[in-house]
Amino acid sequence: MLYLIGLGLGDATDITVKGLQAVKSCSRVYLEAYTSILTVGKEALEEYYGKQLILADRDLVEQGADEILKDADVTDVAFLVVGDPFGATTHSDLVLRAVHAGIPYRVIHNASIMNAVGCCGLQLYNFGETVSVVFWTETWRPESFYDKICKNRAAGLHTLCLLDIKVKEQSIENMMRGKKIYEPPRFMTVSQAADQLIQIVQRRRREEEEGELGVTEDTVCVGLARLGADDQIIRTGTLRQLVSCDLGGPLHSLVVTARLHPLEVDMLRVNAEPDALQHLRVIDSSTFTS
Amino acid sequence: MLYLIGLGLGDATDITVKGLQAVKSCSRVYLEAYTSILTVGKEALEEYYGKQLILADRDLVEQGADEILKDADVTDVAFLVVGDPFGATTHSDLVLRAVHAGIPYRVIHNASIMNAVGCCGLQLYNFGETVSVVFWTETWRPESFYDKICKNRAAGLHTLCLLDIKVKEQSIENMMRGKKIYEPPRFMTVSQAADQLIQIVQRRRREEEEGELGVTEDTVCVGLARLGADDQIIRTGTLRQLVSCDLGGPLHSLVVTARLHPLEVDMLRVNAEPDALQHLRVIDSSTFTS
Repeated sequence: MLYLIGLGLGDATDITVKGLQAVKSCSRVYLEAYTSILTVGKEALEEYYGKQLILADRDLVEQGADEILKDADVTDVAFLVVGDPFGATTHSDLVLRAVHAGIPYRVIHNASIMNAVGCCGLQLYNFGETVSVVFWTETWRPESFYDKICKNRAAGLHTLCLLDIKVKEQSIENMMRGKKIYEPPRFMTVSQAADQLIQIVQRRRREEEEGELGVTEDTVCVGLARLGADDQIIRTGTLRQLVSCDLGGPLHSLVVTARLHPLEVDMLRVNAEPDALQHLRVIDSSTFTS
Repeated sequence: MLYLIGLGLGDATDITVKGLQAVKSCSRVYLEAYTSILTVGKEALEEYYGKQLILADRDLVEQGADEILKDADVTDVAFLVVGDPFGATTHSDLVLRAVHAGIPYRVIHNASIMNAVGCCGLQLYNFGETVSVVFWTETWRPESFYDKICKNRAAGLHTLCLLDIKVKEQSIENMMRGKKIYEPPRFMTVSQAADQLIQIVQRRRREEEEGELGVTEDTVCVGLARLGADDQIIRTGTLRQLVSCDLGGPLHSLVVTARLHPLEVDMLRVNAEPDALQHLRVIDSSTFTS
C-alpha cells in the first residue's frame, strides 16, 4: 500500500492520529521536501515518529518514482507531504504510477494553506482562483498572476497568493557546468510579494487607465506567516503597509481582498494595521449572497 | 483559552495529535453538530477521547455563545468542528465574541472538503468559487448556484458544490405551533444534486439559447461520498450518469468540471464510468497555465 499522508501546517504534532499510525506501520517513509516546509525539520519529525525518513527532493519524485514505489505491493510505504497531499501541489503523477503498477494507495488528508487561510476571517466561499507569485529575475518578470487577481476582484472574490519557494536550486553557472552545487533555500516574504505587486500596479498605471477593480497601493491585503504554528502571524494592511512589514521566518502567503462582508471586516479588524480598514470595500450585508 | 479544533473528515482518528492533546486538556468540550458530520457519532468520539461531549446545535452556537465561552478566560474550552473550523462554515461569530470578551483563542486546523476534494485528481488551483446546492421545496427552487457554475466554467474553473444538510429542522407546522419537534436529518445525495442541476439545464434550454460554456446532461462531473473515510467513493461520470448513481450514506459532494489538464483526465479515468470521458473538454497541455 502506498500511503500519501498530509502533515498539516505547523510542527510534528499536526499529523493526524490516523496518519501517525500509518507512518509507524510503514517499512519506508519518504518526506517530500521541495514544495513546502513545516516549522520543524526532518530530524524533529524522525524523533517524533521514531522512524528514519528518506528525503524526497524533486529529482527523486519526478525521476525516481519507481524507487519510491518499489515493493509497495507487498509492503507499506508512506509519502509524507506538508499540508495536504493534494493541496497546492498535487502528486498525481506518483498516484498514477502506483495505479498502473497495481499498487493500492490511500490518502490521509490534513489541513493545507488552501483551507487554513480561512482563519484570517475571510470566508473560503468568497475566494476565486488561487495564484502563485514567483521570484522575479532580471530577465523574467511574469505578471499573469496580477490579471487573475483583478479577474477575481471583478467577480467579488478574494485571491490567495502562494509565494515562491526555491529549494535545492542550482545557479545557471553550476547547472551548465554540471555541478551539483545548490543555492541556499529561499522563501518569498509577504513584503517581497507586496513589493512585486506594487511594481506591477505602478507600471500598468503609467501605461494604461486604471480599472475600477484593479489593485492599488491602498488595496487591503492580508499577510500570513507560519499559519498553524504557535508563532503564526496574521497581519491585515494596505498593500503599501505590507511592503514594510516583517513577519519573520517562512512560510508566508498573501491574500488580496475583494469586496467584504461586514463579518469579514470585523474579523480582519482583529489583526489590522492602523488606518488600513478605511480602505475596505465593504458591502451592504443585505445585498450579500454567499 | 478557546480552542477551535478541526476533526477532519472520516472518523475519530482523523483528529490531529495536537488537537487530541488539546481536547484531553479542556474542561468542557463542545461538538458542533449541524453543519457537517463524520462517519461516526458523538458516542464513538466520546469513547475515543475519554471525555463527555456537549452537542452544540445551531441554537446553542448562535444564541448560547455566552454559555460556550463561560469561564474560558480561566479554563480551557474546546469547540470541535467537522472538517476545519474555518472551512465551509466559519465560526467567526464565536471567535469575535471571544476576542471582545478578552478570551484568547487558538485554531487547530484540519482537512476539510474545501481542500480534500483535490484527491479526485482535479487540481485545487483550477477551482473557482464554491457553491451550495440546497434542497428545493415546492415554492423555493433557487438557481443562483447554476449561474456561478457557468461563470466558473467560462473562466476554465471547476466548481465544488456543497450539498445541503438539514439537521434538527422543524416543519413549518411545528414551528408555528412552537413545538420543538424536529424532522429526521436529511443529507442531499449526488444523485439528487445532479437531478436538480439537470432540471435547471432543461428549463433554461426551453427558455433561451444554450451558451457554449453552459452545463449539459453530458458535462463531466465527479461525485464524492464520505471523503476521507475507509469506504469513500469517488465516481466520475456525466451529469446524466450521476443522476442514477447510488454512492451510499452521507456526506456527499459534487464537482462540475471545466476544461481539463491531461493529468487531471488521467486521474479522473481511475474512477470513471464507461463512456463518461468522451465528453471531457481536454485542453492542450502546451497552452495550459496554472
